[in-house]
Amino acid sequence: MPLDLTTILAAHTRIRSHIHRTPVLTSASLDAANGGTLFFKCENFQKVGAFKARGATNAVFLLTPAEAAHGVATHSSGNHAAALARAARLRGIPAYIVMPSNSAKSKIRNVEAYGGRITFCEPTQQAREAACAKVIAETGAAMIHPFTDERVMAGQGTAVLELLEDAPALDLILCPVGGGGLLAGTAIAAKGVRPSIQVIAVEPSGAGDAAQSFQAGHIVPLDHAATIADGLRTTVGAPNFAIMQRHVDGVITVSEDSIVAAMRRIWETLKIVVEPSGAVPYAALLEKKLDVTGRRVGLILTGGNVDLDALPWVLK
Amino acid sequence: MPLDLTTILAAHTRIRSHIHRTPVLTSASLDAANGGTLFFKCENFQKVGAFKARGATNAVFLLTPAEAAHGVATHSSGNHAAALARAARLRGIPAYIVMPSNSAKSKIRNVEAYGGRITFCEPTQQAREAACAKVIAETGAAMIHPFTDERVMAGQGTAVLELLEDAPALDLILCPVGGGGLLAGTAIAAKGVRPSIQVIAVEPSGAGDAAQSFQAGHIVPLDHAATIADGLRTTVGAPNFAIMQRHVDGVITVSEDSIVAAMRRIWETLKIVVEPSGAVPYAALLEKKLDVTGRRVGLILTGGNVDLDALPWVLK
Repeated sequence: MPLDLTTILAAHTRIRSHIHRTPVLTSASLDAANGGTLFFKCENFQKVGAFKARGATNAVFLLTPAEAAHGVATHSSGNHAAALARAARLRGIPAYIVMPSNSAKSKIRNVEAYGGRITFCEPTQQAREAACAKVIAETGAAMIHPFTDERVMAGQGTAVLELLEDAPALDLILCPVGGGGLLAGTAIAAKGVRPSIQVIAVEPSGAGDAAQSFQAGHIVPLDHAATIADGLRTTVGAPNFAIMQRHVDGVITVSEDSIVAAMRRIWETLKIVVEPSGAVPYAALLEKKLDVTGRRVGLILTGGNVDLDALPWVLK
Repeated sequence: MPLDLTTILAAHTRIRSHIHRTPVLTSASLDAANGGTLFFKCENFQKVGAFKARGATNAVFLLTPAEAAHGVATHSSGNHAAALARAARLRGIPAYIVMPSNSAKSKIRNVEAYGGRITFCEPTQQAREAACAKVIAETGAAMIHPFTDERVMAGQGTAVLELLEDAPALDLILCPVGGGGLLAGTAIAAKGVRPSIQVIAVEPSGAGDAAQSFQAGHIVPLDHAATIADGLRTTVGAPNFAIMQRHVDGVITVSEDSIVAAMRRIWETLKIVVEPSGAVPYAALLEKKLDVTGRRVGLILTGGNVDLDALPWVLK
């Protein structure tokens, strides 16, 4: 099935009753600070606390009965893990989850709460894939990859559909990029609905593979991720990169200090809890990396699962 | 002007264009934990970060030109201060604000941001009143008391009007009580709209004057407030107490540990930033101080102005 506006619209119909329609927040003081009109799509209020509920639910409900019979499996640093566990429970099948050993405690608790069966592994891409292959060999579960799976990308693209309904005539979307699942769905959905819209990806410079890859014209693998944004510590996937090359207008990198400052600014001003990965798009505005004067800008706040015992401005 | 449903409805019409219509949030997991259906009125998303924007705006816009000529004055631990400064700026008059020296930094910054002229005083009721009287003698400003002023109470009562529109047929409202401005407006508005509704006040046991007064049948002044809930460190006002005796069904006190646990639970589950005073109603549910099984319960989350450097679970 191709990833296009039609499959994303179908995904929205399929998952709508299982997810929240999250609000879009605005702030007069953040608009004044930036000179544009900002619309924050609050996926921190989504089921499981992150947009990942969308893609996982779409993928699980697209499985045939035969495919679903032995459950589903994945590897994930957290939010996709909880999302898949929840979607599997909704469908009544088991979920086998491989998680890196350095995953945030709150994210591990989330997976457990939804009944996911966790296997821990070393925090490398290779270890994750190896552990997941082993689990699948043992159980016969269907793999639901966190970002290269087109069913997942289609689900993630439903967030921007809602954003464009609630905040019409946007000029620009700022979207975080880690593996590129949200970015792929967002770019295709946004440009499908509104061809003139600009889609800019934002990532931590400490995990700057997407920017390097975009510039090089081929994937430059991340050999070491040094960022607080735990959702963005992965190399962009091959199908995601191909979509990015066709549909994304640019990639901006931001510093760790900016991410922490953006996160704090959002907490203090919007009075909401967002995780570091979700603050990455606003960090691009803090760094004045693009001019939004007079423009209508959508920012996707991807999630709100944070260890409240380990807030970055307290640790410093 | 009497404080009744009519004056509260008029207040709503008067202030509507100057305030946010704040959302009402629900949570399947908090409902499951409590056995009832909970509706959180999110006044942390209100202008100035607290419900106080309602009362201050109503009071300032009710002043005659002669009354408004020399500005307004008040004493406040913070949220009313910012709210009055903002309302005065909207009307184009000065605001003179007396703040206790131990006010939260974020609240002091808020007042400054709205152009309020601050005088600091010792953190006692007497020192606040004396400093405020001095400012008024010097400037001729009109006093807008943070909670005994009926115009303020009427404004605060508009929050529950919106809550009852968005969450009809509530059985019970849980409302924090400090000076009793919100409580007075809430009780009169809620019982005016829905006579069968129960209104329960909640306060920290470390500032338990309202509960003691309610039981004694006369005001028992607070001689020492020992609570993290900085918005609730005042003795209930005389007119507020009179309204409480007629319209409030009970007062519950909660421990400091429960307030911190409730605050954290709200941050983690609802993904929103609420200040300790705003978490006090949910603390009553954590302590199982009342049975909400099968009931529809409204909780007023009064504000979200918190020093993010001094979170209580980090300090412990």
